[in-house]
Amino acid sequence: MTHTHTLAVRVYYEDTDFSGLVYHASYLRFMERARTELLRDLGLGQRELLEAQGGLFFVVRAMTIDFRKPAQMDDLLTVETIVREVSGASFDLDQRVTRGEEMLVSAQVRIAAVEGGRPRRLPTEVREKFAAVATPRGA
Amino acid sequence: MTHTHTLAVRVYYEDTDFSGLVYHASYLRFMERARTELLRDLGLGQRELLEAQGGLFFVVRAMTIDFRKPAQMDDLLTVETIVREVSGASFDLDQRVTRGEEMLVSAQVRIAAVEGGRPRRLPTEVREKFAAVATPRGA
Amino acid sequence: MTHTHTLAVRVYYEDTDFSGLVYHASYLRFMERARTELLRDLGLGQRELLEAQGGLFFVVRAMTIDFRKPAQMDDLLTVETIVREVSGASFDLDQRVTRGEEMLVSAQVRIAAVEGGRPRRLPTEVREKFAAVATPRGA
Amino acid sequence: MTHTHTLAVRVYYEDTDFSGLVYHASYLRFMERARTELLRDLGLGQRELLEAQGGLFFVVRAMTIDFRKPAQMDDLLTVETIVREVSGASFDLDQRVTRGEEMLVSAQVRIAAVEGGRPRRLPTEVREKFAAVATPRGA
Repeated sequence: MTHTHTLAVRVYYEDTDFSGLVYHASYLRFMERARTELLRDLGLGQRELLEAQGGLFFVVRAMTIDFRKPAQMDDLLTVETIVREVSGASFDLDQRVTRGEEMLVSAQVRIAAVEGGRPRRLPTEVREKFAAVATPRGA
Repeated sequence: MTHTHTLAVRVYYEDTDFSGLVYHASYLRFMERARTELLRDLGLGQRELLEAQGGLFFVVRAMTIDFRKPAQMDDLLTVETIVREVSGASFDLDQRVTRGEEMLVSAQVRIAAVEGGRPRRLPTEVREKFAAVATPRGA
Repeated sequence: MTHTHTLAVRVYYEDTDFSGLVYHASYLRFMERARTELLRDLGLGQRELLEAQGGLFFVVRAMTIDFRKPAQMDDLLTVETIVREVSGASFDLDQRVTRGEEMLVSAQVRIAAVEGGRPRRLPTEVREKFAAVATPRGA
Repeated sequence: MTHTHTLAVRVYYEDTDFSGLVYHASYLRFMERARTELLRDLGLGQRELLEAQGGLFFVVRAMTIDFRKPAQMDDLLTVETIVREVSGASFDLDQRVTRGEEMLVSAQVRIAAVEGGRPRRLPTEVREKFAAVATPRGA
């Protein structure tokens, strides 16, 4: 069974550019919103983590992104997120932005934790919560 | 004599929306860049202020903005900034975005200082440096 | 009776800046989302308007904004919108961003219609739908 | 000989988030500015292309990005762009964001042309100008 987290995202003026389509970096904002909601659903508020852990932030370490089809103003999109791997210092996600049955954008994302600007191990609580919903890519 | 600070700003994809014109909130980003450069020209780096002053940030307290004519992709704009009034806790600026001889956007802006999320008096150094370049509105 | 349109907005990483608080121009994005949803609730899709009316866009003509208290990462905000006046070429709105009982940001906004970059009269359908939900400021 | 296009980019409030560092999607905006300036240096204005070619836009088709080290408020960054391959329908670029000698972000980017939302071949003029400055990856 695959745990797929979903978030609905509406496209507004701010997300588009003069081509009439959604600006490419806007999809990264949509995917970040979905990761924040996934954390929240796991009981991990980022402001609380920041305070409790003495300055913990999550950062994107690497992304591979395919922009297949464009979204437009007023579109109602879905961001799907699947946790794939959890290691001591990072976790890997697959994310997709869809519009109904159409796949628009797909990405592989590696997230790491930093503290005071430096890499640090994931807190045990975070690692365990992610591991509990992980679906390895080959599974 | 009026001290007018100027900053050149190029319009990119990110600044536009699906109307084909510059998104209205982009002008606020342009005006904030100009304020940051004005501070830098006065010898006030914001990261240094933040560290030296134990957490000082500048925040926009109020704005009145006229959006007269739209800018477009590839336009080369100028942001003009004039310091108008400096008080203990805030300073007032007039800002304009122009394209050659055309006035596109004009704004009156009130900036205040906060520390730990709460209002605080402007540091003396900041107040004096702004006062030295101020041109009162009636002058 | 006052028709107040409300929209819930969550604060994400993208909305904040290095001060730890919400970036001032982000509130304009939140208020624009609320205006788009108000239009949608009135049956006015902006892509449809754009096509049906031969290139109609809404633009912000003027704003007066008070930034009273800051919002932070993870906050759940509400944007309230009240239509105040509708004339041939523009309509006036009052908008507020609140967090529970706290008023964070308030704005008066004038919206106009443009076509091919030039001002045009509001389509009758638009004017009538706005007039039906308007609450004049003195009322 | 490698043709490397460079663009200086200053980090402002708008580019940062509450972690105190630059928001990850901001680097994509910086890299897009560099691509636009590269086009301009090649004599290819995007508004002109849009009009002359009956609706031509460039879109990002795919990106692979490594976020190695974070930039901060007030940093002066350089975006380096190298054209790698040019085919009938797309071109490949390597882009890097550096701060002095430090490499912060590196990316491989595939750009394609669209017209009316659909893929189209690159105009001959565009293909030739890119080919003239291309440095294949293995070279």
